[in-house]
Amino acid sequence: MTAKSQRNWTGEPGALLRVGEGSRLADVDPAATPGYDDGKKHGQADLESGAAELDDLQERLFAQSRVAPGSPAVLLVLQAMDTAGKGGIVRHVVGAVDPQGVALAAFKKPTPEELAHDFLWRIEKRVPGPGMIGVFDRSHYEDVLIGRVRSLAPAEEIERRYGAIVDFEKRLTDAGIRIVKVMLHISSDEQKARLGERLDRPDKHWKYNPGDIDERELWPAYLEAYQTVFERTSTTNAPWYVVPANAKWYARLAVQALLLEALEDIDPQWPAADFDVAVERARLAAS
Amino acid sequence: MTAKSQRNWTGEPGALLRVGEGSRLADVDPAATPGYDDGKKHGQADLESGAAELDDLQERLFAQSRVAPGSPAVLLVLQAMDTAGKGGIVRHVVGAVDPQGVALAAFKKPTPEELAHDFLWRIEKRVPGPGMIGVFDRSHYEDVLIGRVRSLAPAEEIERRYGAIVDFEKRLTDAGIRIVKVMLHISSDEQKARLGERLDRPDKHWKYNPGDIDERELWPAYLEAYQTVFERTSTTNAPWYVVPANAKWYARLAVQALLLEALEDIDPQWPAADFDVAVERARLAAS
Repeated sequence: MTAKSQRNWTGEPGALLRVGEGSRLADVDPAATPGYDDGKKHGQADLESGAAELDDLQERLFAQSRVAPGSPAVLLVLQAMDTAGKGGIVRHVVGAVDPQGVALAAFKKPTPEELAHDFLWRIEKRVPGPGMIGVFDRSHYEDVLIGRVRSLAPAEEIERRYGAIVDFEKRLTDAGIRIVKVMLHISSDEQKARLGERLDRPDKHWKYNPGDIDERELWPAYLEAYQTVFERTSTTNAPWYVVPANAKWYARLAVQALLLEALEDIDPQWPAADFDVAVERARLAAS
Repeated sequence: MTAKSQRNWTGEPGALLRVGEGSRLADVDPAATPGYDDGKKHGQADLESGAAELDDLQERLFAQSRVAPGSPAVLLVLQAMDTAGKGGIVRHVVGAVDPQGVALAAFKKPTPEELAHDFLWRIEKRVPGPGMIGVFDRSHYEDVLIGRVRSLAPAEEIERRYGAIVDFEKRLTDAGIRIVKVMLHISSDEQKARLGERLDRPDKHWKYNPGDIDERELWPAYLEAYQTVFERTSTTNAPWYVVPANAKWYARLAVQALLLEALEDIDPQWPAADFDVAVERARLAAS
């Protein structure tokens, strides 16, 4: 299904980007724009009309939840190497809808208190409530990505986590939460260029961290860890999508398309009045 | 001080709207547009250029806090009668900046757990961290507004709260939080028209609550409770502003102006690099 408002796709973004049986991250070109041949200009126009549709759907989702307990929610999970553009997605895709309907959680290095609990403890606390669009900027997947690459936990603990994640996400989707898991995929060269820009601009220095270079050295290990994540945790109810992200406009358009797909599929409706409209009109007139 | 980006003010919005010694809410015309004679069209243009400035200042505020612990924050407190436009402020003023730098807290009817604690317990938990723009959609002031009007607590407890609020806000401002307290002021007739619109539009029914009419009956008591709030809690460090809100464009522009004033006054700066840029360039090139 292609979102109604994004007219220029030549294929279905969900189908094109979904990680399926036998998908190999190594085969995905970070510079490609699968399903979209019309370039940046049309892409930006589609992003704008898509924002209006997303806005409408988000408000319906929220409205529905005010009346019907246990209403659906959406959870967008964003994972990526540094500089891949998670912040830009939050800003330009999610930022287009009413902030009152968005629950944003940025997961940093765990605190000692968080480390003392199971890795899903801090995640559970930030699961979006009914009617919300939740966004995880990094997530429980850090615990099988950097966790694996840097051996932050014993190998058998890392192994255990894949299954725990699948069970956890199953519980969430059973409770009516649509999970959209996105890996923004950039090339190592593109990251180099973006880190270089951060070094060139004093107003970007605060975003630069010398540790980013250390992580860069581990690029192949991270790609392998992502590949394992996809194989172990891309399920029918909570699939992974790999979004080529060298072209920022494409990544934003594609993530918006995935959110639109999830919301169109929920198809939230304005709730019917739970009061007598005529009676209320009379009360208002008399007030 | 008038925000640089909002060109068409004829006076300083902060000075014009601030509740001072002897201010009477009853004297404020909800349909007025103090300090702004140029009408809606210019107002919207100013709102747009103001959004760009707010965006820039917010990012600096956030950036600064990543490097300097104990950096300042901003807290916008929004209070109003129903339909006065709090949601529109969140959406169109606050929604213009990066969601990653905004901490929004909507305070509803307290839960039993919240009621078992002091009224400031749930508020404290939502105080914005360094670098954030916090927004309270309703606040601790509910406990001296509806709390007073509907006698939800004994009179001496309500009395106690004014002082407790002043002490609490003093502690926050001492810790570097700029508090901007806004009452959006609409007329009873304007509310009637807005409630009527909610009844006319099925996509707005979910926003209508029959209890809104009951609250309407208490309009004079609420105005009196607001007047008392202003007299007891409008302090130099945490002043109240009464923003006429019959004209939505004016209310948005004015609240944006107050936020810009607070941020320009903080004057946040891009933090200097805490690493050697030349060294990092070389490391990046070699990576």
